Order: sequence, then structure tokens, then C-alpha cells
Amino acid sequence: MAQRVEVYDVTLRDGAQGPGVKFSSEDQLRIVQELDAFGVSFIEGGQPGSNPKAAELFRRTKDLEMKHAVMAAFGSTRHAKNAVEDDPNIKALLAAETPVVTIFAKFSPTHVQQVLRVSLEENLRLIEESVAYLKSQGRRVILDAEHFFDGYREDSEYALTALERGWHAGAEVLALCDTNGGSLPWSIGEATHASRTRLPKAVFGIHAHNDSGCGVANTIAAVHAGAVHVQGTINGYGERTGNANLCTVIPDLQLKMGCEVVSEDQLRQLTRLSYLVAELANMGQRDFDPFVGRDAFTHKGGMHADAVKKLKVSYEHIPPETVGNQTRISVSEMSGRSSLLQKAKELGLDLDRDAPETHEALKQVKDLENQGYEFEGADASLELLLRKAMGQYRTFFKLRGFRTSVDRHDADSPAISEATVKLELPDGTRMHTAAEAEGPVDALNYALRKALEGTYPELRDVHLDDYKVRILNAQAATAAVTRVLIESSDGEMSWYTVGVSGNIVAASYQALVDSIEYKLLNSRGYKVD
Amino acid sequence: MAQRVEVYDVTLRDGAQGPGVKFSSEDQLRIVQELDAFGVSFIEGGQPGSNPKAAELFRRTKDLEMKHAVMAAFGSTRHAKNAVEDDPNIKALLAAETPVVTIFAKFSPTHVQQVLRVSLEENLRLIEESVAYLKSQGRRVILDAEHFFDGYREDSEYALTALERGWHAGAEVLALCDTNGGSLPWSIGEATHASRTRLPKAVFGIHAHNDSGCGVANTIAAVHAGAVHVQGTINGYGERTGNANLCTVIPDLQLKMGCEVVSEDQLRQLTRLSYLVAELANMGQRDFDPFVGRDAFTHKGGMHADAVKKLKVSYEHIPPETVGNQTRISVSEMSGRSSLLQKAKELGLDLDRDAPETHEALKQVKDLENQGYEFEGADASLELLLRKAMGQYRTFFKLRGFRTSVDRHDADSPAISEATVKLELPDGTRMHTAAEAEGPVDALNYALRKALEGTYPELRDVHLDDYKVRILNAQAATAAVTRVLIESSDGEMSWYTVGVSGNIVAASYQALVDSIEYKLLNSRGYKVD
Repeated sequence: MAQRVEVYDVTLRDGAQGPGVKFSSEDQLRIVQELDAFGVSFIEGGQPGSNPKAAELFRRTKDLEMKHAVMAAFGSTRHAKNAVEDDPNIKALLAAETPVVTIFAKFSPTHVQQVLRVSLEENLRLIEESVAYLKSQGRRVILDAEHFFDGYREDSEYALTALERGWHAGAEVLALCDTNGGSLPWSIGEATHASRTRLPKAVFGIHAHNDSGCGVANTIAAVHAGAVHVQGTINGYGERTGNANLCTVIPDLQLKMGCEVVSEDQLRQLTRLSYLVAELANMGQRDFDPFVGRDAFTHKGGMHADAVKKLKVSYEHIPPETVGNQTRISVSEMSGRSSLLQKAKELGLDLDRDAPETHEALKQVKDLENQGYEFEGADASLELLLRKAMGQYRTFFKLRGFRTSVDRHDADSPAISEATVKLELPDGTRMHTAAEAEGPVDALNYALRKALEGTYPELRDVHLDDYKVRILNAQAATAAVTRVLIESSDGEMSWYTVGVSGNIVAASYQALVDSIEYKLLNSRGYKVD
Repeated sequence: MAQRVEVYDVTLRDGAQGPGVKFSSEDQLRIVQELDAFGVSFIEGGQPGSNPKAAELFRRTKDLEMKHAVMAAFGSTRHAKNAVEDDPNIKALLAAETPVVTIFAKFSPTHVQQVLRVSLEENLRLIEESVAYLKSQGRRVILDAEHFFDGYREDSEYALTALERGWHAGAEVLALCDTNGGSLPWSIGEATHASRTRLPKAVFGIHAHNDSGCGVANTIAAVHAGAVHVQGTINGYGERTGNANLCTVIPDLQLKMGCEVVSEDQLRQLTRLSYLVAELANMGQRDFDPFVGRDAFTHKGGMHADAVKKLKVSYEHIPPETVGNQTRISVSEMSGRSSLLQKAKELGLDLDRDAPETHEALKQVKDLENQGYEFEGADASLELLLRKAMGQYRTFFKLRGFRTSVDRHDADSPAISEATVKLELPDGTRMHTAAEAEGPVDALNYALRKALEGTYPELRDVHLDDYKVRILNAQAATAAVTRVLIESSDGEMSWYTVGVSGNIVAASYQALVDSIEYKLLNSRGYKVD
């Protein structure tokens, strides 16, 4: 029978400590619902004793109907100077009224004596009493064994004794924490195994960080050694180098180790969940992330693309669909007609292998790539090119000219950018607009919008999410060719466009126009008969 | 005695296949020199048989004096239809004239039969003959065992036999490849162990990818099982989810497993190397990367920052200085004095630890870094800043203003750029110059030169070798902050300068002016008494 492994999500606590990660209260609630639907067993909402936002989240989730998960409040054992029932932190944990309370305690003698500054025996009493008291108040208790692996290396007998005291006091899971993230997989496996030998009936969990680049490997190594509870965050968010990435851990456990974690349907939601949490966290999704990243199953280079077709498993360790991702063939100078056809199929275009428009499109792609275009990151520009070749294209305005300027009047003034745009609309109206902004490209973008939004109000929803500049053939320095890549979004979808020129403003203009045309062709239809 | 492990870098081949990664020929040469100084043993330059840029790199590195590394050319075994001495790929490998040739071959029966489409026995002959022939031509040969771990799982006897044939034909290293990145650490360990048992005298290497999130763990698991040669890329660049990240593997091996990889001094260059390669690849350095990331030792959140103060080892698995990184308590509270002093020493500046100018310089560096400056790749700008703080600085002209414009008169005309510069020379002469060029930054550069070359003729020798643009805080799209990095050269030396602004032209102007000032201070002396 497959080993059942339960997931304990700490995205809202450890994850929210990650540099740049920010969740609003609404985001938190949405993430709770998404994690529940996805099938995690526990959702840690934060530390009610020190974080008012966590306390608010527990109030708001109290009456939420959940299908799979229960909420957990997080805090420390009682302070040495307080009786357990009077300890403010323990009180706050109970006031959160969550089914589960997770308390962290110290398992390394050095930390007990130098950080906590209590005796080794007193630390054991803090653990024992805190677990027992929370149990007596009707809570399920999980014990997070902080610095467990350091403690085990330092004094295995003390670390195991502390686990024993927590277990006998009523903890339902002993979560072994690699708090500073410095352990390697085999030492995690060995200490987990020793803990199981000491407490054969206990339930063990693992809480790993990525400081040695082994956050995922340490987590699955613990499961390999008998742990059945894994803690981590969506996308691996967390302090320093982050926590174990659940978007990698879960498919590793389920698809490679045969564990039972979530259902197959739930697993197919993994990529979506990763994108959603990245968006709510206001972080870019990382294209290179295992399983869920945009490039996790992207193949380029003639040899590989060819081999993938011959034998998909060659370069795909799992079927991408099982985690809701897909194979992508990047169109690059190394690849030929079959990659372009496959890409067209991915974009939903019915391009015939031997049709003249296929030859024409292929020729154009090659010419443009020789000029420095790169379509692998610019699907929307490629789609426009293919649709033009297929005759499924129309124009929405005609450029008559533009101008940008950057002025710095003296050494102490800031530089000021201005742009003007002249264009003609389909009904013959000539627009001539101007705008000012911090940089010349931004000014150009505003001037273009001013000229078009009256006729095409849907452009008001479009904003630029990302803007990248790459200098090609950089030996020629500032005279080199510039490639600009723009990510646009209208709140419902994102698209990528590219522009190339010896002039950075002209390259940006082109990527901006592609972005606008893509949006308008989508909102107003591709073909006019 | 510590186990010696040799590093085989594939940044210029596998790394260059990473989405978005692009190296110019100059970048490649610079990376070769940096990797050599850092202490890797092998640098793979690419596939001369299919990539003219790789062939060029081998020509350019032939007469390079290297301290630690040798160059390796990469290609497949002979094609089944060719005699080995007539095989175009084998000929190209020999024509590269590298000390080392690395050939890849198939080790999984499925791949041999379905992708390569030859018999199992013929595949063994391809391996044997290709290795032996290259050996007979005076090359050291490394055999990359593609899909080895899949092959071992499928038919261990065939995979081990293929290794045996390659070893007896004269390969000096058998590099076991987890080509689709799907293996987990314990299966890597087991197959490595079985290979060593079969061939006790052979030398084993490991080539891992990160598709299961275990690229690093799989690499060190192989070393744990007896491999002594590791392949990977700087920053983990590579196709899909990337290759094993050498910036994590090397410190794991050296600091945690006690292996001897590079010297302590070399290891302290790791963070700098990571930043430098990221800059050259025009990729953002990843703040959360283990060991070398900006946030790898950043502590926020009251509890942790406090605990770190009490006991540094609590949340720092290694001393950050050992890899050239540093503890950061928060973004606004950096503790960079010792690195700044180290850098000053490196630049030949005698900066006193407790002098007021040191405090002043440190404060300025922090302020500028908060604005988005990055001095890792801009030594000349940093030196100017330090000399200003030390009073060893003078000005050669005073800017009174500049203006750039980009004009496109109609849809079919090219964009034309013009720049004007107003400045004052030390004798009071006012210069007002104008220039035209393809892009606005180039025009600005020409106008500046026109204004200065009469007074400072040595500027005629200066040319811009490289120009890189990075958009920071890219969520703000075109309104984001732009960082420009310029490499200048006068035929005798190269120097790097940086500029940051919300306006790309203003950022470029600043980097151009730093470049000119650096040249003039060097040619005309730093201090005027």
C-alpha cells in the first residue's frame, strides 16, 4: 500500500518572511481556500501572539468550510518565567481557536543554554508542560523541534530525550527542523532513522530550509527514512534561501516515490497554484522551477527537440500534464520547420506542413532571428507573425512618426523625457499626442495610449508587467543591436512581445505596438473578410 | 586526507542553453579566465562540430596561459555510418586542439535502439572506437555517459558494460549523467556505488540536472558514493530547470563534506564569480541562491535577527565570509566594512579601518546600493567613489546640460538619434557639441568626446567594449530603475563603470562620465595639491 504523507503548509508564516513576499489579508484568505482545495492537511496561519494579522486570519477562517485542511496557530513553548496557564503566548495560541496548535522548542543544548538561557532540564519541562497543557485544552498539538539536526549532532541523547518528552506529553507529530538549513540528505536520513528507532510509535515530520541547496532533497530523504509529514511553502518562499519548495516536494513524493499525497486531479492543479501564489505574493514566477516553471519542459536545440519527438521520455522525467504543465518547444535559430509547426499547434494555429505560408513564416522567423530577434520568450509576437503569414491579420492604426527627447538642463537637474506620436486611425482621423515621463520609453507608451484609448477603450485595462533590455553583439558597445522584451497583462492573461533595433527607443516602440496589436486582435477578432 | 574533487565547468555549453542566457565571444573569453583563476580543473568550451562560436573560442584560448584549468571540446561519438577517422564531428573535435575531448554516448538500451537506432553491440563499438581513436591522437578523453541512471534502472548490466568498454578504451573519467534530471539522491548513490564496485580503478564523475529539484543533492550524493569529478554550471544555468549549480555544489563539498576542491582564497571569490557570470549572461543574480545570493545570509524578523546576534551559528550554517558573502541584518543595515576594506586593498588603496573617510565611503556605497547600484561588476566606479572620499579626486570638466532625441518621421523611415552636450573646461572654455548616431546613447558618447578630445587627446584611444542594461524592480515596467554597465578599454587595460537612474539615457550618461574620469585620473594623476 502506498505510504500516506500529509502536507503542512507554512507559506503564510515562513513564506511571508521571504524577501519581497507580501500578502494582504484578502490574499491570505484566498491562499487558505486554494490550499484546502489542493489537498494539504494543515495550513499554518502565523503567530497569533506576535502578529495581529495572524490573529485576524484565524478569526476569518473559523467559520470557513474546509474540505481537506485544518488551520494551525504557531508559537513557542511557555516562557521560563511564566506558569503555562498564564503565559501570554500560550493564551494567544488558545485564543486563536484553531483545531491544531504547533509549538516550537529548542533541541540543541547550545541553543538552550546560550539563546534561551535556561538549564537543559528546565527546557525539557517547558516542552512537556506546554504540550500537555494545550492538549488538556482540547487542541491537537504538533511539536516543531527547532535546530533538531544540529542538536542531534551535538548531543544525540539530549535531542532524542526532548522528542520523547514531547511525544509522551501528547504531541501528535514530532516535526524535525533543519532550522539553519545546513544539513545534507544523508545526515537527515540518519537522524530521522535514529528518532524512529528510539520512538517506534511516534509520527515524524520534516521542516527543511534550502541553505545548502538541499531543501527538497532533505525533505524527501526524511520521508525515505520514515517521516510521514512534510512542512514547506509554495514556490519555496522563505527567509534567506527559502523553505523546502512544496511544488517540488509533492510531485517528487507522489510521482517518484509512490507516496499518496493528493489526488491525481489535485496534482494537476499544482502549476496553477504555483502561479496564483506567485501573483498574490507579488513575486515573478520562476521560469526554471522544477515541475511548475514555464521552462521546466521547454526544449530547444535541434538535437534535443528532435530526440524529444522520437522519445518523449528522453528529456522529460515525468509527463508534464500530471502537474498541469506542458511541453514547450522554443523556436530558436537551431530549430527548423517541425519546431515551428509544433509551436503553432501549441498556439492553436492550424499551420500546414507544406503550405506556402509555412515556408514564408519560417523564412521570416529565420531572417528576424539573424537580426537578433528571439521568439522563445515572445509568444505574442510570434503569433502575430504567423497570423500575418496566414492572412489572419489587420491593422488598427498607421504610424506617421514619433519623437522622444531626454533633456537635462544643467548638472543638478533631473533628466526629463518627452514623447510625441503621430498616427492615423482607420476612419482617417489623425492623432498627434504628447506625454512626459521619467524615461523616454515610458513617455512613448503614454503618448501611444493617449492616441488610441479613445477609439479602443479596452487598452485602458492593459498594463506593462515587465520590461527587459538585452544588448546583442555587445562588442560594438552602444552602437550594438538592442532587443527589448515586454510582458503585458490585462488582468486576465499575460502576453510577451519583442522588438529589435540599433536604437533602444525604436526597439521598445516595436514591442509596445506588438503588445497593443495582440490585445486588439484578441478583443476584436483576427480576420476581416 | 581530504578527498580531492575536480570541477568540470559546463557554463559555456549547457549553461548557454539556459533560456535567456547569451554570451558574446568576449564574455566567453572573460569567463574562461575567471574560471581558471577560481580554480576549476576543466572548462568545456562547446561543441566545435556544430557551433562556429565554440570553434572560435578554442582558437582564442589556445595560447592563453592558464593556471589551473584546461579546455575541453565536446561532441558525440562517431556516427554509425562513418569510420572514426572520417567522422566530421570527431575531426572537428581534433581540430579544436584542446588538451581534453569529452564525448557523450548512450547508456540506455531504449535510447540506443529508439533514438540512435543502432544495435546494442554497435553502440558499444562506437564508444570504444571513439575513445580509443581520440586517445591515439594525443587527447585526454572524458566519457559522458548520457542517460546513465535511466539506463542503469533499465538494464544495469548493459550500462555497466558500456562504462567498462569506455574505461578500457582509455577514458580518464567516466561522467555519469542524469540527463533528464529525474533521479533522486539515493538512486544516484546506489548506481554510483555499483559502478565503482564493477570498475574499482576507474575515476567517476557526475553530471546532474535539477528537474527533480535535486541537482545539487544528486551531485554531492555521487561524491558521497565515491565520484571525484563534478560537472555543473555557475548559477545553475542550463536547459529546462538548469544544471547542478556549482556555486552551491562547491561549498557543500568543501565546507560540509571536507573535500578539497579549491583553495580557501579561491572559495572567497565564489560570490564575486556568481555575480560576474550573472552580469555577463545578462541574467539577474538570484537573491535567494544558497551561499552566494544577496539574501543567503540576510536576517529579518525580530526573533531571528536577535538570535543571530546572540549566537551567529543559529541561523548561519557557514560563516558567509568563507564564500565571499556577508551577513545582512536588513536591507538598510548592511555590515560591509570589511569587504569594502578588502576591495580597497585589492584596488591598491590604503583605506584605514576607523578613518572618517571609510565611514563616509561605506555610507555612500550603502546608499547607492539601496538605489540599485551594483559595484561587484564596476570596479572603476567604486574606485572613483573611494578616491573621492579620500580626497584623491579632481574634476576635468563641468557638465552644464545635455539633450538627446530620437526621431522617426514616418512609418518607413529609420529612427535617427541626436545628442547635444554643454560643458565647461577647467580654463573656463564652454563647449557645446552635437552628434548623430543610430541610438541615443551612442550619440551622447560621440558628443561628449567631441567636447573633450581637443583638451584631452588621450580619450581618442578609449573605446567602449561592452554595454549592458538591466531593469531593476521590473514590475514597474518601463518606469522601473535602469542600471547600465559599461566596459571601456584603451588597448592596454579595461575598466568597468556603472550608472543608475529611472531614465536609461541619464544612467548611461553617468556610466560614460565615470569611464572618462577614470581614464583621465589614470593618465593625469589623481591628486592635485
